Amino acid sequence: MTSLERQQYIIGVDLGGTNIVAGAMTADGSRHLAMRSIPTNSSVGDEGVAERMIALIEGVILDAMSETDATRTDFVGIGIGAPGPLDREEGIVLVAPNLGWKDFPLRKRIQDRLKLPTTLDNDANCATFGEWWQGAARGGKNVVGITIGTGIGGGLILNGALYHGSSDMAGEIGHTTIDLNGRHCKCGNYGCLEAYASAPAIATRACEVLVREEGESSIPAMVNGKFDDITAQIVYDAAQAGDQIANEIVRDTAKYLGAGVANLLNIFNPDIVVVAGGVTAAGDALFVPLRAEVRRRAFSPAVRAVKIVPGELPGTAGVVGAVASFKQQYLGGV
Amino acid sequence: MTSLERQQYIIGVDLGGTNIVAGAMTADGSRHLAMRSIPTNSSVGDEGVAERMIALIEGVILDAMSETDATRTDFVGIGIGAPGPLDREEGIVLVAPNLGWKDFPLRKRIQDRLKLPTTLDNDANCATFGEWWQGAARGGKNVVGITIGTGIGGGLILNGALYHGSSDMAGEIGHTTIDLNGRHCKCGNYGCLEAYASAPAIATRACEVLVREEGESSIPAMVNGKFDDITAQIVYDAAQAGDQIANEIVRDTAKYLGAGVANLLNIFNPDIVVVAGGVTAAGDALFVPLRAEVRRRAFSPAVRAVKIVPGELPGTAGVVGAVASFKQQYLGGV
Repeated sequence: MTSLERQQYIIGVDLGGTNIVAGAMTADGSRHLAMRSIPTNSSVGDEGVAERMIALIEGVILDAMSETDATRTDFVGIGIGAPGPLDREEGIVLVAPNLGWKDFPLRKRIQDRLKLPTTLDNDANCATFGEWWQGAARGGKNVVGITIGTGIGGGLILNGALYHGSSDMAGEIGHTTIDLNGRHCKCGNYGCLEAYASAPAIATRACEVLVREEGESSIPAMVNGKFDDITAQIVYDAAQAGDQIANEIVRDTAKYLGAGVANLLNIFNPDIVVVAGGVTAAGDALFVPLRAEVRRRAFSPAVRAVKIVPGELPGTAGVVGAVASFKQQYLGGV
Repeated sequence: MTSLERQQYIIGVDLGGTNIVAGAMTADGSRHLAMRSIPTNSSVGDEGVAERMIALIEGVILDAMSETDATRTDFVGIGIGAPGPLDREEGIVLVAPNLGWKDFPLRKRIQDRLKLPTTLDNDANCATFGEWWQGAARGGKNVVGITIGTGIGGGLILNGALYHGSSDMAGEIGHTTIDLNGRHCKCGNYGCLEAYASAPAIATRACEVLVREEGESSIPAMVNGKFDDITAQIVYDAAQAGDQIANEIVRDTAKYLGAGVANLLNIFNPDIVVVAGGVTAAGDALFVPLRAEVRRRAFSPAVRAVKIVPGELPGTAGVVGAVASFKQQYLGGV
């Protein structure tokens, strides 16, 4: 940037079922500005949520202007990460069960009102792309991102670019079968990774174990004996604090996750696998047995080529990646 | 090509555990010349097999010259497909259990003797690339190739180029777990697709079934009652001829294969999946239940985006793809 060129800014938005997170970044990624979050309130419907997003973005632009010498014309565009499946080309959210949306032209709504070029991408893709641009997957050539929450989302970066597949459906890592006669998954398939290693699956496993072995764990006291209140986060916290049963549950989860990650190693031969989401709170209690299970299952040249790491941008990876996706789609490169 | 430019030729070689196949092609792919096959005779060792390959290539060049007006200088290079894992950059076959090789510098041996630029690639990658260039996957943007034989090999074409991964290990589709507590696979993992859907797995399943239900099938008569002589090919032939038990075995195979292919749809969202190898002889007996199982398991937008087809270049896909790989690696594009 010469002294005559003005700094340019890009807005990133991460639309989730619970919260909308947005922020501004300098186009070179060097500064994050005005990161904010509001509840999604999906009950207001698709148009209502779009209005909330527009108001949030307006607020981010004003805040960012107050933090810098930027003027309105220095904002060059908006990248949005949204739950899929999407039609990226047309900027449409095809189906979003958690939002209750169907065929909603989100990009057009935002773009028309804010008069800024806008791109749309899958939220799990954005989270992976964010970790690649500025987080735990920096410098990776071929990266698999796995985000573990209510579901298990995935994103693929191949040869340094987000890979979308033939109809923007690529990266549904949570819905790969690791046990073909196994548990029924809400996607309709059987034995999906998500059915074994998502946060609700971990909470359910904890309940099942504790019904039998209550006395030996600190978890029942943590939920005042209400097993229905057990969450994955509580299991991770107990594991970190040294609870043996919580550690066993995390190890079981690592075994399932390890089978899924080993498949990805044998298929993709990535140099980085980044695991993000609340599960990273379990730390080594998860990552040590996870890496061991992957070593047991995947080809050793693929194991030697990869590092398996926790995400480094909790809460902001989606926004950072939405900015990176705008750069890839609209500016031609990150 | 103007009248002043001479036609250029590229040699393709497909090195297998049983046979070495080679042929010449015009660089534009329009003509196949002098396709020949000799036994590998792997017992002669790595240097001995390299000598056999050199003699075969010399023969192909002479034959191709006799079929055209080509002179020796019109041959611009050699593409080799070999079993992996490989170090593509260095041209080394790292490990090839079926050949008994370890760290053999195959590319250098061929290149030094024949004084032609030579590239090395994985045999399953080449088979997929051949189907993409001139066979069943023509026009595909994102292609998954699955070759079913003694093992199950795979190749990935993403955005129109062979995808190799971070250390040339990508595409080991046969070694993805579909049943994490399932059969032990010779790779050391458990429940790999290869342990259920390879040709030997199909022959074994036929034996197991026929020991119980002999009277209702034509297969025992086809092997004179010697169940050990049952091969996958015999099962396919019997299925094609309407044998009920053979059809059940093929349907079972399709179910396992369908779980593996559905995983690939949810991960890659390809536009074409090409299934090659002897198994294609089973025809609709395999492909109809295979497509049905994939529909049951994969996300419907991914199912709608794909066609699942048999290979069209039995016996030559590897040679054609080795030529295509030479073009991608040495000439910069196919």
